[in-house]
Amino acid sequence: MRIVLDKKPGSPIYQQISDFFSQAILTGILTADTRLPSMRSLAQDLGVSRITVENAYARLEADGLVASRVGSGTYVLPVLPITVSPSSGDDSAWPVWQQGPLARSKRSLQDSLFRHLADGHGVTDPVYFSGGIGDPCLFPVREFGRVMQRVIRRDGMEGLSYGEPNGYLPLRRTISQVMTSLGICINPENILVTTGSQQALSLVVQALLRSDDMVIVEEPTYNGALDLFEALHIRPIGVPVDEQGMCVEQLEPLLQTYHPKLIYTIPNFQNPTGACLSSSRRRALVALALRYNVPILEDDFVGDLRYDGCTQPALKSLDPCGTVIYVSTFSKMLMPDLRVGFLAADGPIYETLVNLKCLNDLATSNLTQRALNSFLSVGSYQAHLRKTIRIYKKRREAMVTAVDRYLNGCVAYSVPQGGLFLWLRLVGQVDGGALLRQAVDAGVGFAPGAGFFIDKSAGEQFLRLNFAYQTEASIDKGISRLAEALARLD
Amino acid sequence: MRIVLDKKPGSPIYQQISDFFSQAILTGILTADTRLPSMRSLAQDLGVSRITVENAYARLEADGLVASRVGSGTYVLPVLPITVSPSSGDDSAWPVWQQGPLARSKRSLQDSLFRHLADGHGVTDPVYFSGGIGDPCLFPVREFGRVMQRVIRRDGMEGLSYGEPNGYLPLRRTISQVMTSLGICINPENILVTTGSQQALSLVVQALLRSDDMVIVEEPTYNGALDLFEALHIRPIGVPVDEQGMCVEQLEPLLQTYHPKLIYTIPNFQNPTGACLSSSRRRALVALALRYNVPILEDDFVGDLRYDGCTQPALKSLDPCGTVIYVSTFSKMLMPDLRVGFLAADGPIYETLVNLKCLNDLATSNLTQRALNSFLSVGSYQAHLRKTIRIYKKRREAMVTAVDRYLNGCVAYSVPQGGLFLWLRLVGQVDGGALLRQAVDAGVGFAPGAGFFIDKSAGEQFLRLNFAYQTEASIDKGISRLAEALARLD
Ligand SMILES: Cc1ncc(COP(=O)(O)O)c(C=O)c1O
Ligand SMILES: Cc1ncc(COP(=O)(O)O)c(C=O)c1O
Repeated sequence: MRIVLDKKPGSPIYQQISDFFSQAILTGILTADTRLPSMRSLAQDLGVSRITVENAYARLEADGLVASRVGSGTYVLPVLPITVSPSSGDDSAWPVWQQGPLARSKRSLQDSLFRHLADGHGVTDPVYFSGGIGDPCLFPVREFGRVMQRVIRRDGMEGLSYGEPNGYLPLRRTISQVMTSLGICINPENILVTTGSQQALSLVVQALLRSDDMVIVEEPTYNGALDLFEALHIRPIGVPVDEQGMCVEQLEPLLQTYHPKLIYTIPNFQNPTGACLSSSRRRALVALALRYNVPILEDDFVGDLRYDGCTQPALKSLDPCGTVIYVSTFSKMLMPDLRVGFLAADGPIYETLVNLKCLNDLATSNLTQRALNSFLSVGSYQAHLRKTIRIYKKRREAMVTAVDRYLNGCVAYSVPQGGLFLWLRLVGQVDGGALLRQAVDAGVGFAPGAGFFIDKSAGEQFLRLNFAYQTEASIDKGISRLAEALARLD
Repeated sequence: MRIVLDKKPGSPIYQQISDFFSQAILTGILTADTRLPSMRSLAQDLGVSRITVENAYARLEADGLVASRVGSGTYVLPVLPITVSPSSGDDSAWPVWQQGPLARSKRSLQDSLFRHLADGHGVTDPVYFSGGIGDPCLFPVREFGRVMQRVIRRDGMEGLSYGEPNGYLPLRRTISQVMTSLGICINPENILVTTGSQQALSLVVQALLRSDDMVIVEEPTYNGALDLFEALHIRPIGVPVDEQGMCVEQLEPLLQTYHPKLIYTIPNFQNPTGACLSSSRRRALVALALRYNVPILEDDFVGDLRYDGCTQPALKSLDPCGTVIYVSTFSKMLMPDLRVGFLAADGPIYETLVNLKCLNDLATSNLTQRALNSFLSVGSYQAHLRKTIRIYKKRREAMVTAVDRYLNGCVAYSVPQGGLFLWLRLVGQVDGGALLRQAVDAGVGFAPGAGFFIDKSAGEQFLRLNFAYQTEASIDKGISRLAEALARLD
């Protein structure tokens, strides 16, 4: 026990001890039936006499907060906890260094990832179009649990120390094989396993960018990248996206004017637009990056989820010499909670990234990596991929059909060739915020467009809908509710 | 499959396809018995004719790299892989942005955490004094595996989406109870669960410090903090440590001269010295932080592992108003591979830290958090703590005895009241690097002092020995080997 004791007049030690416990009990932190430390050990810990502790406990007992059970110790009694008011809104109560710009409230990423729908709206079967993940029912949860158990039995303690900072070697080998079987040839020595691909993005930013540096992004783009840049005071410059992905033709003047330190792109089934970068633009992009000496961060979060059209080479495969840093993840295909992603980098930057990884969180869980490695093989991954593609493709069709049926004339969109998202533009003057409130009332959520734009107001007219997350029946219901919500706005 | 195909003269498409596979097979990435994609699906993926793919596969077969099995597909044959030379040491082969300062080689943290001893020295029973963790044999590995399995069965998919960004609420409640039972009263609303406490350190640094800012540290201090500061271009200012911890008396002039943005301290059983900050210095430190308006980062990595002496209040408990950010971890007491730590912060900074956590890796594994919560209770944690203390205390005794016996007169040290480490100063002019080489030859490793100092040369005379990691017999053997190694140096 490390209770604060002061030798101040008017506040005897026994009282300071009983005050500590009564506060903890009344605020509900120490709950009923928690056993207090034995008097002997507490006296010894605090360097006070046994009688002092006896007095403290006697007072708690007199106050009705604890009861001693003969031969077994002193236990907390049930009490009605008082509610502590949360941090007052008054900034001036905090130390000066906490006042001011710290009190930001950037929540767009958290909202789109975690807060699907406000609760308590009386809708019993809400439809979630807002999230950024695939259907949890397809995640191999139980198999994975069994593999984990087997790995613990097999590797015991060895699996539970700090692992290698760049990742468990057999897993890096497997990733290299799976990637190669998909057409992207990467050596295990160039792979760094990360805590989700979000960490990979964060490491690359830490390695290559300083405050006030410029970065080229697609506009719109992944809100988790935009928020990251903002938090680290990095300035994004947007390049528009059309059906063929980033408008690479517009890039060169920006490179000349702004001297950006990085180009961040999601070439396949982009978040949020679903666009896939065309083959000629891919080559042009890599050529420009080489000419202007700017690294490319290629975020390939759902590159394997293609439902039609021809595959396109990864930018990494077009890169002759270490200009592209490739990032991908198991969050979308297997499950988000694994928190396993990876990056592939060539050249001295690789060691810098490994070092930063280590300084950011020492290492990614070894047990998880070993289990993932036991679970993954070229064959099993490809089989899982085929099944997932078959299902998501039907859901994409279902959403397109429902949109054409219920929202005909109210929205414009292109059918994405893969991925998770349908990106809708509202035709006419609709207030996106108001639509979201109506939609939630009607029992359907979506990711409002604003979070994906540098200039938030440019996103007012857009919604991102996830078609992979739920069944075709739910999709139909959700889109019809969205139509209702839209009708109510007029 | 996303193979790069070019319409260039002299290199027909079929050959480009076969080149891709033969490279992957010869470099050993695609191993024997891997099945190649079916010809039909590959042709469709790549948008080429079936005959093109047939030609490509025929060529691979002619080269002896694959074989087709009737009715089942084309499989990779065993080959002797050619070794690819790793990244050449010649920097000029890389893009210009990769040349220069990126090619750092900071490895002190990685060495002390991961590389206990060089292998192949012919010693069959090496003794590891170098690591920073407790004894893996005491880690509740199997129980934890069982709990994990139970949680997967109980919570299914729900446990495997992205969790709440600040951490699973029931776990935050449990942490709050455990902390309070140890005398540190913290509300669940002020707790942020992190990917190990290393991430907590990294988040606080990202939130509060910019390049070239100054930070006060104990000297010596945890190398993982020093390396983090260096990587982010933050300038540490050292305050000496004596038996009573940081020499707080020397702090005020530094605060006046350098205007540091943070004070980083490990008040209990400091890494590496083992010193525990005295009660009066604790109060003085918090008072100074308030007066000069500098936040304190309190790293309490092994605060509960006390073997004798009276407990001291946490700095956080002495803080009236949100000046101290408290950080702790389950790595040392339960197991490092959990990758679960936490911080406690009051005031607007809390939200900033939650936001940064989200941008760094979205969330800490929900499954791990749920399992940890099922595993932890005030009672079980206290029981585990008591057992651990009993065992480590004996090992500390064993190490002190062995040092007095084998190294008498060669080293100076103070007995730490808790924690994991004994910190030795070599008496006389000994070259620490040379000693480490001799020691490794003799079959014993230690963490050389240099990594823990801002001024590396100041650490030459010091070694950090972990007494918690192994049995008393091994400790005795290890210290006697260390004495041998030292003798060989003369
Ligand atoms: C484009 C993109 N990149 C990266 C991520 C990060 O995901 P994770 O950290 O789970 O790999 C996401 C998550 O939504 C994403 O949409
Ligand atoms: C003083 C100190 N703080 C923090 C850490 C980080 O450990 P973890 O991230 O496993 O909690 C360590 C690890 O060695 C340490 O020694």
